[in-house]
Amino acid sequence: MTADTSFRLRVAVIGAGPSGLAQLRAFAAARKEGAEIPEIVCFERQSDLGGQWNYSWRHGTDEYGESVHSSMYRHLWSNGPKETLELADYTFDEHFGRPISSYPPREVLWDYISGRIERDGLREWIRFSTIVRRVDHDAATRTFTVVSEYLPTGEQTTEVFDRVVVATGHFSVPNVPYFEGIETFPGQVTHAHDFRGAEHMEGRTVLVVGGSSSAEDIALQAFKFGAARVLISHRRDPLGYGWPDRIEECAVAERFEGRTVHLADGTSVEVDEVVLCTGYRHSFPFLPAHLALHTKNKLWQDHLYKGVVFEHCTDLFYLGMQDQWFTFNMFDAMGWFVRDVILGRFELPPLEEMRADMAAWKAKFEAIDSVPAKGWFQAAHFKDVLAATDYPPFDVDAGVRTFLEWKQDKKEDILTYRDVCYTSHLTGTTATPHHTPWIDELDDSMENYLRLHGPVAAVEPAAGWAFGFLRSLLVLLLPVPAPPLERYP
Amino acid sequence: MTADTSFRLRVAVIGAGPSGLAQLRAFAAARKEGAEIPEIVCFERQSDLGGQWNYSWRHGTDEYGESVHSSMYRHLWSNGPKETLELADYTFDEHFGRPISSYPPREVLWDYISGRIERDGLREWIRFSTIVRRVDHDAATRTFTVVSEYLPTGEQTTEVFDRVVVATGHFSVPNVPYFEGIETFPGQVTHAHDFRGAEHMEGRTVLVVGGSSSAEDIALQAFKFGAARVLISHRRDPLGYGWPDRIEECAVAERFEGRTVHLADGTSVEVDEVVLCTGYRHSFPFLPAHLALHTKNKLWQDHLYKGVVFEHCTDLFYLGMQDQWFTFNMFDAMGWFVRDVILGRFELPPLEEMRADMAAWKAKFEAIDSVPAKGWFQAAHFKDVLAATDYPPFDVDAGVRTFLEWKQDKKEDILTYRDVCYTSHLTGTTATPHHTPWIDELDDSMENYLRLHGPVAAVEPAAGWAFGFLRSLLVLLLPVPAPPLERYP
Repeated sequence: MTADTSFRLRVAVIGAGPSGLAQLRAFAAARKEGAEIPEIVCFERQSDLGGQWNYSWRHGTDEYGESVHSSMYRHLWSNGPKETLELADYTFDEHFGRPISSYPPREVLWDYISGRIERDGLREWIRFSTIVRRVDHDAATRTFTVVSEYLPTGEQTTEVFDRVVVATGHFSVPNVPYFEGIETFPGQVTHAHDFRGAEHMEGRTVLVVGGSSSAEDIALQAFKFGAARVLISHRRDPLGYGWPDRIEECAVAERFEGRTVHLADGTSVEVDEVVLCTGYRHSFPFLPAHLALHTKNKLWQDHLYKGVVFEHCTDLFYLGMQDQWFTFNMFDAMGWFVRDVILGRFELPPLEEMRADMAAWKAKFEAIDSVPAKGWFQAAHFKDVLAATDYPPFDVDAGVRTFLEWKQDKKEDILTYRDVCYTSHLTGTTATPHHTPWIDELDDSMENYLRLHGPVAAVEPAAGWAFGFLRSLLVLLLPVPAPPLERYP
Repeated sequence: MTADTSFRLRVAVIGAGPSGLAQLRAFAAARKEGAEIPEIVCFERQSDLGGQWNYSWRHGTDEYGESVHSSMYRHLWSNGPKETLELADYTFDEHFGRPISSYPPREVLWDYISGRIERDGLREWIRFSTIVRRVDHDAATRTFTVVSEYLPTGEQTTEVFDRVVVATGHFSVPNVPYFEGIETFPGQVTHAHDFRGAEHMEGRTVLVVGGSSSAEDIALQAFKFGAARVLISHRRDPLGYGWPDRIEECAVAERFEGRTVHLADGTSVEVDEVVLCTGYRHSFPFLPAHLALHTKNKLWQDHLYKGVVFEHCTDLFYLGMQDQWFTFNMFDAMGWFVRDVILGRFELPPLEEMRADMAAWKAKFEAIDSVPAKGWFQAAHFKDVLAATDYPPFDVDAGVRTFLEWKQDKKEDILTYRDVCYTSHLTGTTATPHHTPWIDELDDSMENYLRLHGPVAAVEPAAGWAFGFLRSLLVLLLPVPAPPLERYP
């Protein structure tokens, strides 16, 4: 398998979001250590990097008539502690030079993931505003033909690549089921993907349909910006947080009749607006059907050896296609692994061996029986990939413990959990509280975020450590019943 | 050019909206007269026919994650008299069996264009829920390779065709310019493409950006459904209608600063919501760049002989790509003409001759110096195509005169012009008034529309004829200053 991995290889990376950037950085890290690396071309259809974190006021289609990638909205703050997504390869301390809070707003996280790309000068590998229209594969020559289009001019380019890394994300293309009678609803029906902010919801009654992180956070946004009443409807067990007044969970929405929503418990509600937080679709319109991953949002994806190598064409890789507890750092580990396969540093085992390995992981995935078990499953998968690379040491288990503490924080108070401070297991730095409680903070700009942060930071670390330690103890002692989790966003 | 037009040809028609359906009907008409016709495959990515007229409550993306084609909204009624779009090949009388009003709502027009397709059993030519992913052309073999995907399963099919007719419309992909500071606007910003109704605008101040038919009609929708104040802002001369209270035209919006919109005249307004009626883009992501039409919405499109035959590949046809006064009937004439080229009934002249013809039309287009001249230009183009076909007789000039009367109606009263009744120059039937004035009609269903229509009809025709005649006289005598027009939607 390694014979033809000469360093004249051409590698296409599709997408410059957190996963694609991890792939670029992986190759840059090898180059820095003196390795010869392939020619890398990263195709990014947006005009800047960051993927999901590259917020745009636009929704639907962009300035070129292509679908807007990001589902990001104004006032989105991380919904998990930043300590769980910190890059071992590029810490928050390295980027910001001082402690910040555990739940930064979108612009701050965008700045962070951009930081090492700028440091390493990797923008030159990225072709911005360039969409991949079509990828075809020739098994005989082990090459891919990639048709891309530079959107500002419409110019199309056809090129040959030896390896393709698909890093286009899976929180961009909405899943929008039909609800009986919804065509009679006279208000606005918006999928979370197109939600850009809740300011217009002031005084309104909003139905949020869904039971995962988007539903939870958009309900909170509606509350924060003054909705008169927020109803959360979904099919699973109640989220069960201590919701404030104006937010309530209701039975499943079964049928719309004008403004009236009939619920499964026989009651009905009148609502002004509906936000569908009904998830996303894995979508690869540029790939031939036999190379496209056909799946849903799951912690284990079939057909991907180590979660990344496509079983039916091992020159094709997928990054970040799993449901996610871990994000940026797991993408890094996967990017490092893909790099090593491409460089011939990691020799892929024979197909049957890969299949046996995948089957074993699938069995573990199917045995998951609790929410914490989900975290531990992903941790095991993450560690399995990590162990095959030279990615800097990263305490994955500590990450899971932080996730479990975070779930406890949310149970304790859904309105204040973002005010809690965690400690980095990479740097030992304890986060400093943001100058304003999250529920009262109506300015999500990085400028405002960093404005008062420094002075407060100096006095916090010691207390933070103690607080974190006590919470860790608590989590280890108590079972944590919590809802299934889908992150970002 | 005719040598290889054997009747084994395979023709792909992309899109089953008004243009694509015209193409299907053209072939069906030839078949009915005994002609052998090619194998026709019509690809339609939606689950039903009608294109723009196939309304969906969905916006953004559909149930398969593909962009929603239609820009149709609840409560859209024809914004021009139906007598100008009537099919010579299938009249309103034939479809409805009785007179109806001149401005039917969307569902009624959808029913009309579906009628002859059902009558002729042409649904079997259409592959619904099937998107064309890629078309490639081999000039040596004069064939096209079409990759399509059946969306419910993701199954892709690669097929060879001899001719391709692109009938995908050009009012589907929004043109969304950037406005300085719009990212600071805390309300909703929606392009007309994603607008589905104005009910939620009750009591709000709405800024409508744009100067064409979408802006005009969405402003009226906002008014009709109770917006507190509607501001229309655009760069051209004022639309100048006798707007009712609560609608006003304002200077160009130059800059957003939060909720405040700074206008070019130095004033500013506070608005709750923005609707961008900033037009659409011609978009052919499935075509190689050298086969794609790169253009804007204009009455004359370069590179299209007779408005349909692509100069650089005469086996490729575009239908309905012009800006439109005439619609359904002009698409018919174009579909008939394309059919005759494909059947070898019309022999394309040598390239230089086609170029000279296009250049002559372009010169006429560039000489247009008034609004009526636009109508007469399109009429001339329409008649030129029509003359080359056996499409049933159609009085194009009468159509222009109706358009000019209609513009006068709007000048007279923008709230009541849809209550006016016109007479068909195909059947002599005069429209009957709808049972409820448009401004008061809040039910746009076909059921409600047809409910009371019959009884009123009986007494109207004579008066209608006289009314129409008098208005015609008026129009011929008076110059008609009116704004540029873009129709549907």
